[in-house]
Amino acid sequence: MSDMSDVKALVFDVFGTVVDWRSSLIADFTKWGSSQGISADWTALVDAWRRAYMPSMDVVRHHPERGFAKLDTLHRQSLEVLIEKFRIIGLSDADLRHLTLGWHRLHPWADSVGGLTRLKTKYIISPLSNGNVALLTNMAKFAGLPWDLIMSAELFEHYKPDPQAYLGAAALLNLKPEQVMMVAAHNNDLEAAQKLGLKTAFVPRITEYGPHQSRDFKADGEWDVVADDFGDLAKRMGC
Amino acid sequence: MSDMSDVKALVFDVFGTVVDWRSSLIADFTKWGSSQGISADWTALVDAWRRAYMPSMDVVRHHPERGFAKLDTLHRQSLEVLIEKFRIIGLSDADLRHLTLGWHRLHPWADSVGGLTRLKTKYIISPLSNGNVALLTNMAKFAGLPWDLIMSAELFEHYKPDPQAYLGAAALLNLKPEQVMMVAAHNNDLEAAQKLGLKTAFVPRITEYGPHQSRDFKADGEWDVVADDFGDLAKRMGC
Repeated sequence: MSDMSDVKALVFDVFGTVVDWRSSLIADFTKWGSSQGISADWTALVDAWRRAYMPSMDVVRHHPERGFAKLDTLHRQSLEVLIEKFRIIGLSDADLRHLTLGWHRLHPWADSVGGLTRLKTKYIISPLSNGNVALLTNMAKFAGLPWDLIMSAELFEHYKPDPQAYLGAAALLNLKPEQVMMVAAHNNDLEAAQKLGLKTAFVPRITEYGPHQSRDFKADGEWDVVADDFGDLAKRMGC
Repeated sequence: MSDMSDVKALVFDVFGTVVDWRSSLIADFTKWGSSQGISADWTALVDAWRRAYMPSMDVVRHHPERGFAKLDTLHRQSLEVLIEKFRIIGLSDADLRHLTLGWHRLHPWADSVGGLTRLKTKYIISPLSNGNVALLTNMAKFAGLPWDLIMSAELFEHYKPDPQAYLGAAALLNLKPEQVMMVAAHNNDLEAAQKLGLKTAFVPRITEYGPHQSRDFKADGEWDVVADDFGDLAKRMGC
């Protein structure tokens, strides 16, 4: 493990790393659908919605001339396609809005809040997420995430793993890349961060995709820290 | 008083409204100067430094072709001029850096943390300050300010009272201007916010400038709320 004494800030991937988006959305939509009398395979919808995530950001990445679109907008666009595909009928505009805002109502993993609270005593802690600022702010209030500030791809108008997101976060904090540690359950996020000089910490979340999990069961790179969960991360970081 | 029930977020001016920059800096520098054996009229320096604040932002505002400069940079530039003017000798680059970072080490008014903590239970609370993100983040950790997120002129590359700062804050939060309340001890800040449709709250800080206070002794406009302090503001906002 390399020298961690210069690290001043820990920045976190959020979807999957801090919050359990899949179980949260399935439970939220199932309960809501039942209360509304709307029948659908909500689990299939959630999985398909997440599969649309990377392609939707790729469109933004490859068409800068169209301007940046925040993740709430991409989520809504993907949802409109999917409700047609899944033949879910009877949804009003308010319903589509409610479902899209489901991404603001995600529950943390059991160790997230406790670990973040410990880390906050010694480090600046912030999301560095592709979720937009409003999404991350509302989620923090919903889930009790004790962030010091909210950093989002939206601020840099570049989705991870574009370099501008990682370097932009360090610059906003007046820090050098090596003074910032990226924490993620996804090896590809850490790979991008490490190439730019950030420190890296891997925390496995092997149930993130439920039965569809196909990777990120373990650390695949030379990360500075590999922790069992956020409590273990706090311990390893001296908190 | 107009209807406040739509307000979702309170955004705060910081220098003067949340923290007592003048007393904090004078005490900090006096103690530090004494420990370093550096003699200076620190009170005069602090007052002159603050007088350079508005003109330094005006240069950024009127020369967009030079690009945006964060407040730490403007503070450092102003300081370099002032130490010549005040003939303060023997300061190293590290000393200038320490003094500039004095703006990250400001103490809150006695009612600030308690009031913000109450307001946070019902509203999103954020600075909307000309201080840069790192300054506001470090200050929050130093002073125990429980912000939900950090919004700064730096994010919008426009200093208040440029409209982009106020409208940018509402847009980042997915809110309409009338769902955001600007809180300030400065009537001109509220005037700019109100023109753009934000709600407004005035809290007097009549000792901000010490013996040099020349305005903002009271509310000069038709603000939505006029409170005695942050505790009174929390009460008036139903917290």
